[in-house]
Amino acid sequence: MRERPTATEENKIIPIEQYGLRLMSMGFLLDDSAPAILRGPMVTRYTQQFLRQVEWGELDFLMLDLPPGTGDIQLTIVQTVALSGAIVVTTPQEVALIDARKAATMFEKVNVPVLGLVENMSYFVSPSDGKRYHIFGSGGGEREAKRLRVPLLGQVPIDIATRESGDRGMPIVGEDRKSPVATEFKRIAENLRKTLT
Amino acid sequence: MRERPTATEENKIIPIEQYGLRLMSMGFLLDDSAPAILRGPMVTRYTQQFLRQVEWGELDFLMLDLPPGTGDIQLTIVQTVALSGAIVVTTPQEVALIDARKAATMFEKVNVPVLGLVENMSYFVSPSDGKRYHIFGSGGGEREAKRLRVPLLGQVPIDIATRESGDRGMPIVGEDRKSPVATEFKRIAENLRKTLT
Repeated sequence: MRERPTATEENKIIPIEQYGLRLMSMGFLLDDSAPAILRGPMVTRYTQQFLRQVEWGELDFLMLDLPPGTGDIQLTIVQTVALSGAIVVTTPQEVALIDARKAATMFEKVNVPVLGLVENMSYFVSPSDGKRYHIFGSGGGEREAKRLRVPLLGQVPIDIATRESGDRGMPIVGEDRKSPVATEFKRIAENLRKTLT
Repeated sequence: MRERPTATEENKIIPIEQYGLRLMSMGFLLDDSAPAILRGPMVTRYTQQFLRQVEWGELDFLMLDLPPGTGDIQLTIVQTVALSGAIVVTTPQEVALIDARKAATMFEKVNVPVLGLVENMSYFVSPSDGKRYHIFGSGGGEREAKRLRVPLLGQVPIDIATRESGDRGMPIVGEDRKSPVATEFKRIAENLRKTLT
């Protein structure tokens, strides 16, 4: 998205609407090369503003895509709104699973249910011969989901078409809805919808 | 590393020594599943402690591996110690380059020279037929290095052996020093050594 959000007369931010989604991001407010150099208290203030000062209107779901870690943003969110749950995204690699475990432990501590785990970068299908390469290891997401006693919501392969359409600003489900990644995304979404409604 | 650091009589932390490197990490102080749930001021305090309260001794170089972003950790470091320079690591993908640009802009603003750019996940060599797949795009690192007028220090491919040895706690340069990734790491290190001495 390259659009800049506008504001209502009551000075609330109007989210950008695209593909049936209302979107808000720090990136919409800054130039491409301008870093958001912010200490914790300012991060907290922006996070609260994105929750309270955006004219979200009626929504089916509000999804928050968080940066990695267990810091100010995560803490502010759980202390500002009641969350239906958290989704933990990880690669199958051991060092990534350690961080996934930490994220799950944090949400547990603040009484936010972990709805499930999504394994990203699960494998790469070589266009040469269709063989699957488990670059970041195999079975890590499944093992960790069992350990955390949460569902493994899906396994998303590394996919050139998904990356390319993403870089063009077009989600793969819009560009090629029958592609393996699009199918997996829809499966994950469907699983979540069932859990949450 | 699974060791826990100990302390000197003056209550300074003794870093873990391995492969000729002295290492200190938040992870050494916590259990594998224990998240460091910290707001900004605490992050600042730990960052300062790692710089000032660790018995580093005589070092050739002190490298700080930072999390992504331009927040408390980055700000605290530039305000606590004089840095010789920053190295920006990115994948060739457009959305990653945007963040790399922001990081470079931040270091510029606080007068820390950017020593160069490292492109990670540059390509994947299919074990089927040795063909290179530029999963995250091609030439992104080079274009961005030119735009920022800094050297492109190296291009590191996605490599299963590197991931496997890393997960075992063994750097690829120790396990297979002639492998393509080990060779690239050594080239990057040599480039940096020349710049810094």
